[in-house]
Amino acid sequence: MPPRRLLAAALLMGLFTTTAQADEGMWMPGQLSDIAAPMRAAGFRGDVRTLADVTRPPLSAVVRAGGGTGAFVSGDGLLLTNHHVAYGVIQYNSRPERDIIEGGFIAAGRSDERPSNPDFRVLVTVGFDRVTDTVLEAARGLQGRAYFDAVDAASKRIVADCEQAGDVRCSVANMYYGTDFYRIRQLELRDVRLVYAPPRAIGNYGDEIDNFMWPRHTGDFTLLRSYVSPDGRPADYSPDNVPYAPPAHLQIARTGLHAGDFAMLAGYPGVTFRHRTADEFEAQVTRTLPQRVAVFDALIAAVEQAGQGDADVRTRYAAQLQSLKNNRKRAAGELEGLRRSDAVAQRREDERAMLAATPAATRGEIDALRTVLAEGDAMGERDLLLGLVASQTQLMRAALLLERLRLESARPDSERETGYQRRDHALIEGVLRQAQRRYAPAAEKALMTVLIGRYQQLPDAQRLPAFDAAFGRTPESLAHALDTLYAGTRLGDEAERLSRFAAARDGRALADDPLIALAGPLVAAQLEIEHARKRRDGEQLRLRPAYMQALFAWRASQGRAVYPDANGTLRVSYGRVEALSPRDAVTYAPVTTVAGIVDKHTGEAPFDAPRPLLDAIARGDFTGTDEPSLGTQPVNFLTNLDTTGGNSGSPVLNARGELVGLNFDSNWESVSASWWFDPRLKRAIHVDMRYMRWLMAEVYPAPALLEEMGLPAR
Amino acid sequence: MPPRRLLAAALLMGLFTTTAQADEGMWMPGQLSDIAAPMRAAGFRGDVRTLADVTRPPLSAVVRAGGGTGAFVSGDGLLLTNHHVAYGVIQYNSRPERDIIEGGFIAAGRSDERPSNPDFRVLVTVGFDRVTDTVLEAARGLQGRAYFDAVDAASKRIVADCEQAGDVRCSVANMYYGTDFYRIRQLELRDVRLVYAPPRAIGNYGDEIDNFMWPRHTGDFTLLRSYVSPDGRPADYSPDNVPYAPPAHLQIARTGLHAGDFAMLAGYPGVTFRHRTADEFEAQVTRTLPQRVAVFDALIAAVEQAGQGDADVRTRYAAQLQSLKNNRKRAAGELEGLRRSDAVAQRREDERAMLAATPAATRGEIDALRTVLAEGDAMGERDLLLGLVASQTQLMRAALLLERLRLESARPDSERETGYQRRDHALIEGVLRQAQRRYAPAAEKALMTVLIGRYQQLPDAQRLPAFDAAFGRTPESLAHALDTLYAGTRLGDEAERLSRFAAARDGRALADDPLIALAGPLVAAQLEIEHARKRRDGEQLRLRPAYMQALFAWRASQGRAVYPDANGTLRVSYGRVEALSPRDAVTYAPVTTVAGIVDKHTGEAPFDAPRPLLDAIARGDFTGTDEPSLGTQPVNFLTNLDTTGGNSGSPVLNARGELVGLNFDSNWESVSASWWFDPRLKRAIHVDMRYMRWLMAEVYPAPALLEEMGLPAR
Repeated sequence: MPPRRLLAAALLMGLFTTTAQADEGMWMPGQLSDIAAPMRAAGFRGDVRTLADVTRPPLSAVVRAGGGTGAFVSGDGLLLTNHHVAYGVIQYNSRPERDIIEGGFIAAGRSDERPSNPDFRVLVTVGFDRVTDTVLEAARGLQGRAYFDAVDAASKRIVADCEQAGDVRCSVANMYYGTDFYRIRQLELRDVRLVYAPPRAIGNYGDEIDNFMWPRHTGDFTLLRSYVSPDGRPADYSPDNVPYAPPAHLQIARTGLHAGDFAMLAGYPGVTFRHRTADEFEAQVTRTLPQRVAVFDALIAAVEQAGQGDADVRTRYAAQLQSLKNNRKRAAGELEGLRRSDAVAQRREDERAMLAATPAATRGEIDALRTVLAEGDAMGERDLLLGLVASQTQLMRAALLLERLRLESARPDSERETGYQRRDHALIEGVLRQAQRRYAPAAEKALMTVLIGRYQQLPDAQRLPAFDAAFGRTPESLAHALDTLYAGTRLGDEAERLSRFAAARDGRALADDPLIALAGPLVAAQLEIEHARKRRDGEQLRLRPAYMQALFAWRASQGRAVYPDANGTLRVSYGRVEALSPRDAVTYAPVTTVAGIVDKHTGEAPFDAPRPLLDAIARGDFTGTDEPSLGTQPVNFLTNLDTTGGNSGSPVLNARGELVGLNFDSNWESVSASWWFDPRLKRAIHVDMRYMRWLMAEVYPAPALLEEMGLPAR
Repeated sequence: MPPRRLLAAALLMGLFTTTAQADEGMWMPGQLSDIAAPMRAAGFRGDVRTLADVTRPPLSAVVRAGGGTGAFVSGDGLLLTNHHVAYGVIQYNSRPERDIIEGGFIAAGRSDERPSNPDFRVLVTVGFDRVTDTVLEAARGLQGRAYFDAVDAASKRIVADCEQAGDVRCSVANMYYGTDFYRIRQLELRDVRLVYAPPRAIGNYGDEIDNFMWPRHTGDFTLLRSYVSPDGRPADYSPDNVPYAPPAHLQIARTGLHAGDFAMLAGYPGVTFRHRTADEFEAQVTRTLPQRVAVFDALIAAVEQAGQGDADVRTRYAAQLQSLKNNRKRAAGELEGLRRSDAVAQRREDERAMLAATPAATRGEIDALRTVLAEGDAMGERDLLLGLVASQTQLMRAALLLERLRLESARPDSERETGYQRRDHALIEGVLRQAQRRYAPAAEKALMTVLIGRYQQLPDAQRLPAFDAAFGRTPESLAHALDTLYAGTRLGDEAERLSRFAAARDGRALADDPLIALAGPLVAAQLEIEHARKRRDGEQLRLRPAYMQALFAWRASQGRAVYPDANGTLRVSYGRVEALSPRDAVTYAPVTTVAGIVDKHTGEAPFDAPRPLLDAIARGDFTGTDEPSLGTQPVNFLTNLDTTGGNSGSPVLNARGELVGLNFDSNWESVSASWWFDPRLKRAIHVDMRYMRWLMAEVYPAPALLEEMGLPAR
C-alpha cells in the first residue's frame, strides 16, 4: 500500500487522536492534509489544505536563498533570510572605506540596493510533480550497478526535458530512499540585492563562542530583494531590472509567542538519517563516529606538530586545522548525543518490533538490504581514510584530480562523471591554483603518514593492491615512499600544475612527475571503489523501499505518519515554544531579552554590542515590540521544531500563519538529531521578529521598509 | 544608645513586621532574641532564646575545626565537617600502599580511627563574655598609636589572665570595629581522629572546574572524632584517650528541604567589609581591586615569560603561578560583582541618608575617620606593591625576614612583634628552607622588576628614600641594581640562609651579603610604614564606633538590626532554599540529583565518579533518602544564607533545628559578597544530608556510624 493510503487508513481509524509524535517530523507539504488532526490538536488555527501545495500561498513565499532558506515579506520581492546566509552578499559589498560587515547597511532607497555576488541565487519552486514511474520504468528487473545507472539516466533525462523550456532549473528528488521520485521546477532568480543588514556585532553577536548555544542574543537577519527583467523573467543583474513580484509573501506578526504556543516552520533541510536501519545506527555509533574522532584527532596532532616552531606552516594550515577541529567537534558531539539518547538500542527495539509485524517476502528483501549495507560497512574505515587522502592533501589531491580529469576528458562531456564535466573546469582550476597557499611538504607528509599509516593497519579484506604497491605495508616503506615522492615532485610549482591541467582537460597525457605517475594506479583503484559503491547504491535504491514499506505499515499501526528523510526539498515542521533543561538542575527559559545583550557585552568581539544598541536598551523604549509578560524587549526564542542544516533562514509561523520568527541555529545537544530526534533535547533557535522590528524602528531605523512590510514605524 | 537597646526600641515599635532584610546577616547568637520576630516570620519554628547562648545546646555543638567549622553529631564526639576542611587529616593518613585520598576511608571500629596531623585542632567555645570596658579603660582619652597600643596591651592581658587556668585558649574579639569587645574561651581538642571519608572523586567531585559553580554534585563531607584524656581534659594523641562528650550534638533530619523552606546556618565566618564607609567601597572598586588585577596580571606575565623554554623554572614557579592566577581571578570576580550590583552608589546613597540623620558631634568624628582612611588610601598602591615584594620573592623575602628577626630578637620575647617571637622560629626556618625549591634568579628578578618598576611610577608622596636609594628612579637603575644584587648574593644557598637564621634569632649581626646589606634600610622603611599603619589603626579603633553608632540609629529607624562584620567568631544566619537566575533566561534549580553525577561523569578526574557510586545510581534504590518530589536521590542544595570563607563545614538546620545540610561553597557571583550582599545573586552551596546518609547506607556502608547518629541503616 502506498504511504498516502496507509496514512489515510490510519486517520480513518482515528489513531491520530492518541498519537504522541513528540513533534518530530519534516513533512512534505503534500502530506500535511494527512496530519491535519494532530496539527490542529497542537494548536494550528489555519486551513491545512492551503499549506499542502508548495506552488501556492503561503508556502510559495518560502524559497531557497544561497545555502539556506528565505521568505518573501513584501509584494515587491523583499526577502528575509539570515545574516549568515547573506554573509557573502554583505562581504561582497564591503569596502575598506565603508566596512558594511562591521557597520551594517541600510539602502537609502531602491536605487541604493547593492547587487549580490554573481553566484548568489534565489530559487522559487514553481512545480513539484511525482515522477516515480518514469524514473523507475527502465530500472525494474535490474540489480546493482545497472539499477543505479537506469535511475541515474532516467533522472538526467527528466531534468534535461524539463529545462528545455528555459528560465527554470529542474531536479529530481528521491523520497523515502528510492520509494518515490519528484520532479522539482524552480525559477532561478539571479539579480538579488542587499537592502538591510545589521552590524556584525548584532547579526553575529557571540559568533563562534555562542554558536550552538542557548540562551542566545543574536539579530541574525538580513533583508534582500529579488529583481527580474522588465518582462518579468529571471535575469542577470541590470539597472533596468524591476523588483520581482513573488507568488506570495508572509505577513509579520504584531505579537510574539509564549512557552507552549504552537509554532511551525518551512524550509529546505539538507540531510537526515532518521529512517536508516538499526545496523546503520549501530555502525554509526560503534564504528563510523569513533573512527572519525580518532582520525581527526590524529590529523590535528600531525598538523599541530608540523607547525611547532614554524610560523609559516601554522599560517598555511590554519584554515585546515580549524576545519579539522570543527569536524572533530561535530563528530564527537553527534556521538555523545546518540549515546546520551541511547539511540541504537531504541532504534533496534523499534526495528525488531517492526520486522515481527512484516510479511516474510518483504523481510527477505530487507535481509538482502542488510547484506549490502554490511558490505559497505566492512569497507567503511578504508573509504574514510582514502577519502581524506583526496580531501586533506594538496599535491596528492592535485595529482589525483589531474589524472581523473584526464581519464574523464577522453569521453564525451555528457558521459563524464559529475564534477569533471566542462562546466566544472573553473572550479578544478581554482583548487589547483590555491594549493599554492595551503601547502608545506612536512605537513602534507605528516597528514599522509597518519592516513596511509592507518590504512596499513586495516585487515586484508579492505586493502587495495595499488596502495600497497605505492606505499608498502610498513611504516618504514611508507616513510621512504613519501620522502621520495615529495623530494621528486614538481607539483609544488603552480605553473607545473596548471600546464598539466591544460593537458588533462583535453584528455592528453600528463608530463612526467613522481606524484602523477603514482596517481595512475591509485585513480584506477579509486574507480574500483567507486564502481563497488555505485553497485551497492543501486542495490540500496532497489531494496530500501521494502524497508520503507515495512516502516509505513508499522507506523500506521501506531497511528503515526512517516516523513521522508531530509534531502534539500521544501519541508514543514510544527511544534511549540519550549524551554530546555539540558542538565540536572539547569533550565533555560525559551525567550531571551535585551538584558542578556548587556550581560554578555565585554566591549571586545564577539561580545561588542554597538553603542547605538546599548544606548537604545538603556533608553528602554520598547513600545509595540516588547513582550508584556517580561516587561522588556525579547530577542531570540526557542522551539522544539524539527530542523537540520539548510533550515537557516526558515520562517517560523504562528498558529494563524503569521511570521513570528526566523530560524538561525540549534542547540549543541541537537547535533545528533540528524540521526535521532530526542524530544527532551532537540531545540531550534530563532530571531524574534519583534527584535528585528525594534532594531528597524528604534536603533537603525528604516521606516520605509517597515511600511513596505505593512508594519508600523513604531 | 547601645545597639541592643536601639534594637529593642525598634522591636517595640513593631518595625520588624514590615522589614525587608533580604536575609542578609551574620548574627551573633546573643542578638537572635532581638530578631526573633523576623526569624519566626521567615519560618523558624524553634525557641529563639535557646539559640542565644553559644555555650548551650544547640550552638555548643558547633565548633571550629581546622580552618573551618564543624558540628558534633553524636554524644561520643563524632564531628561532621567538609572533606576539604579535613583534607590535611586524610592526606596525613594516606600511604602509597593505601591511598585513602583516592579510595576514601571507613574506620573498622573505634580502634581503627586514625590520628590527625598534629596541628589539626577542634575548638569548643565554653565562654563568651563582654569585656569592652576592660579593653577600652586605658585607651580612653588617647589617640593614634597610643590608642592602638593601649587596646593591644589590654587585650593581651585579658588573654594571659584567661589562659592561666589552663586547658583553654582565649582570645579577644573586636565587634563593630572597636565598639564592643568579647573574651572568648575555647577548649582546644588536640586528639582528633579520622572516622569516615568518601573517595576523592565523591568528596571533591568536580574539583577546580566546579569550584564556585552551581549546579554542583559533590559529597564534600568527612566524619572525625574528638578524643580527650581519661579524666576528660584536652590532650595530645594517646591510645588511652577516650571519646570527648560534647556539650551538645545535632540530630540529622530524616527529610530534606524544598524551594522556599526556612534554613539557618551556624559557623565561623572569617572577614567581611559590609559596614565599611562609602569612601572605602569606592576605593575598593575604583583603585584597590583594579590595582590588584593589574599587578597580578603583570606578575603572571613575568613568571610565564621567565618560564618560557625553561621547564625547570616552570616547575619551581608552578605553585606561585597558580596562586597568582587564583588571586587575580578572585580580585576580578569581586570587582565584577561589586560593579554588577552597583555597590558603591548604593552604599553612598545609604550613607548620605544616614549622615543627614546623624547628630553633628558624631558627624565630626566620622569626618575625622574619613580623613584617616583617606591617608591610608593615599598609600594603598605603595603598600600593596611593597607587601608583594615581601611575599612574592624568595631571596629578597629571606633577607627582609632575617633582618627583621635580628631586630626583634634584640628585645624581650614578650615585646617582640607577633610573628617574630620564639614560638614563630620553626615557621620562619621552614620558609627559609623551602626558598630553595621555589627560586630561580631570572624569575625573581622579573618579579622584582614588575613590583619596583611600578613603585617607581608612584607620585613622590608615596615614595620612601630607602627604596629610591636601593633601586634608583629609572628602569635602567633598577635593572642594574637587581643584576648586581642577584649576581653577588649567596642567599641562594640554603646553608648561607640557615647560618644567618641562627645569628638572627639570637639578635646577633648577620654575615655580609649584598641582599642582607640592602635589607637594613629597607626594613627600617618597612617599620616606618608599620608605625604609620598602627597609628591609623589606632585612630580607626577610636573613631569607627561613631560611624557604627550612626549606622545603628539609622538602621533602627529603618526597623533593621545590625550584625557585626565577620571576624572569625560564631555567627548564625537564616534564610531559605532558593533557586538562582544569574543571567538572562538561565535558571538553576536549588536541588541537584544523582542524575547530574552521571551527566558530568567523563571517567577522567575530576569527573571520574567511582564505579560503586555509578552502580548504586544505576540500581536506583534510594528508599528513605530520596526526594519524593523529584523521584530520585538529591545531592546538593542551594540557599540564600549569608556566608563567607570560614563557613566551610557549617551545619545547615531546618525550621526545627535539625541538621539538613553541610555548607561547603558559594557561587561565583557571591565572590563580592564580602563587601556587598546582593540578594539576587548571593547563594550558599550545601551537601544534602540525605546524600551523605545514602552514601553511608548504600554505596560505602557504615551501619555502625549511622546507628551512632541515630539514623536507620537504610
